[in-house]
Amino acid sequence: MAAYSPPASGREGRLRLDFNENTVGCSRRVLAAIRRLTRDRLATYPEYESWRGRLAAAFGRSTDETVITNGTDEAIQLALNTFVNAGDRVILSEPTFAMYRFYASVAGTDLVNVRPGPDLVFPMEAVRQEMRLLGGRAVFIANPNNPTATAVDPDEIERLVAEFTDTLVFVDEAYFEFYGRTLLPLVTRYQNLLVSRTFSKAYGLAALRIGCLFAHPDTARHMLKAQSPYSVNSVALVAALEAVCDQEYVNKYVAAVLRSRQMIEKEFRRLGVSYVPSSANFVLARFGDRALAVRDGLRERGILARDRSYELPGCVRFTLGTPAQTRRLIRALREVLR
Amino acid sequence: MAAYSPPASGREGRLRLDFNENTVGCSRRVLAAIRRLTRDRLATYPEYESWRGRLAAAFGRSTDETVITNGTDEAIQLALNTFVNAGDRVILSEPTFAMYRFYASVAGTDLVNVRPGPDLVFPMEAVRQEMRLLGGRAVFIANPNNPTATAVDPDEIERLVAEFTDTLVFVDEAYFEFYGRTLLPLVTRYQNLLVSRTFSKAYGLAALRIGCLFAHPDTARHMLKAQSPYSVNSVALVAALEAVCDQEYVNKYVAAVLRSRQMIEKEFRRLGVSYVPSSANFVLARFGDRALAVRDGLRERGILARDRSYELPGCVRFTLGTPAQTRRLIRALREVLR
Repeated sequence: MAAYSPPASGREGRLRLDFNENTVGCSRRVLAAIRRLTRDRLATYPEYESWRGRLAAAFGRSTDETVITNGTDEAIQLALNTFVNAGDRVILSEPTFAMYRFYASVAGTDLVNVRPGPDLVFPMEAVRQEMRLLGGRAVFIANPNNPTATAVDPDEIERLVAEFTDTLVFVDEAYFEFYGRTLLPLVTRYQNLLVSRTFSKAYGLAALRIGCLFAHPDTARHMLKAQSPYSVNSVALVAALEAVCDQEYVNKYVAAVLRSRQMIEKEFRRLGVSYVPSSANFVLARFGDRALAVRDGLRERGILARDRSYELPGCVRFTLGTPAQTRRLIRALREVLR
Repeated sequence: MAAYSPPASGREGRLRLDFNENTVGCSRRVLAAIRRLTRDRLATYPEYESWRGRLAAAFGRSTDETVITNGTDEAIQLALNTFVNAGDRVILSEPTFAMYRFYASVAGTDLVNVRPGPDLVFPMEAVRQEMRLLGGRAVFIANPNNPTATAVDPDEIERLVAEFTDTLVFVDEAYFEFYGRTLLPLVTRYQNLLVSRTFSKAYGLAALRIGCLFAHPDTARHMLKAQSPYSVNSVALVAALEAVCDQEYVNKYVAAVLRSRQMIEKEFRRLGVSYVPSSANFVLARFGDRALAVRDGLRERGILARDRSYELPGCVRFTLGTPAQTRRLIRALREVLR
């Protein structure tokens, strides 16, 4: 539980390329909706039933396949609390999102880390062998993965889901919007598949803490019974629905990030910096002994990036924003590396 | 886990006397602070460190005694996850706030319900005897208690805390503002005492989900380690600090509720309706066979109240708001009971 460090203070006024957030902000429509909230509404407990239906519909799912969660964090914890007991084997492949280990440890499970190969892609074949040998109650797959930005073919994940029907497969699609492939429609078919989405990344609502967890109705029902009745706040409900309805805004932002991804990867090749080809809104690059100097040099220039050396020696992770922000990053990088 | 039913839809436009919320709304200063939030701020993950210090100071505590929680719900779950194992004895006295049983069940603990006597006051002596006989890992005390609105002398709770130093005593002071007595300063002295406060009641922020849990620094440290890193949203942080700084608003509201409490208790005596003397912003009254008719008759008149017959046969719980709202309630009650 030592590895994860939440944002320190002092981010304000700097270019936020350190937490894979939307670097511009949420849609103006969201802000307008929040400003319409009344004193009376703020004093009233959230009421989820109608919001579940509306959010479900926005994702093309039915209400009974949908659980609204306090960020993806609650989705992970809820899945573990509902279906996994202390001592059960939980499989993941690190480096990955730190919260799988965090909540699995809090729940007292037996964590099995199947390390990826040098390409840092989810080691599907090794996980399968591990499962066949000793089984597992749950597998966590971030797709695309954080901090590597690598993706695994959804068809391969489906084969895992289909083969191990007693194992819960939790697919965290936090970066789906930047990747474009999903297992979401398959929740109808498999009771052991969970798919999570978040509003913290492309939609620019990290401050509000909201995500959606999708599952087969029989699976979702169990989780809804174990869920805290008031875990998600009303501002998040209003904002999330407005955000998902403003697809024009999110599409434009995603397109900008994808242009930035091409720009930065091209620049890394030019600079001779090795990087992991990205399927998300961030990219991991290797600077070896210079990793900390890169992070600190950027910080001096008002740009925040994440040193990941504690799990990937010499690696720095850069969130990608708009092309203008990426040009600024590239200029600063050139200075620092000179 | 069947007893608790979160608010159904259809509350809007009615007088909300069913969930012990602030019936007027939060302070105007809170609303103004929320409307100053920017798109950029909403896209940024919450950062708690500076808020912990500021909220702690507002309650007269130090930062290291303070945990900010996603409502009191998270405080309860966090205390259980951190200090209580599956199978441990957890003691409560029902009828009380349903979430103690809910989270203790989810955690697989051994729940012991020590029933109160006919006065519905927390049965301190019976709990003590139970503890001496068979022990207990944790005791939950809502003070004042919900749904009975009864209070137990804080000195008596302190004696319990002092006698059973290996038992965690969780004192839920959600209705403190309407009662005025607290164990809060004692967290410095006892490592086994937890005191929770909420912004969902007097402060009128139920929609935002925020509370504070106070404990000895050594106790708080353990909980902070087990806590979800982003459980509380940023709007709630901004709103809570603004709310607690606007003491003029909350004092005025509390004074209005206390006048309402005198009014309704006087009316119950006049009507010959038996009630439990209240130390909170709600009151429980016995209507026997007419309980449902009372609730439904009020609903027809645009007033929401809570039937508690499933745990207290024939009892209806009324949240108290301003004197004007209470006069409206009294007029409607007279009609319904005629």
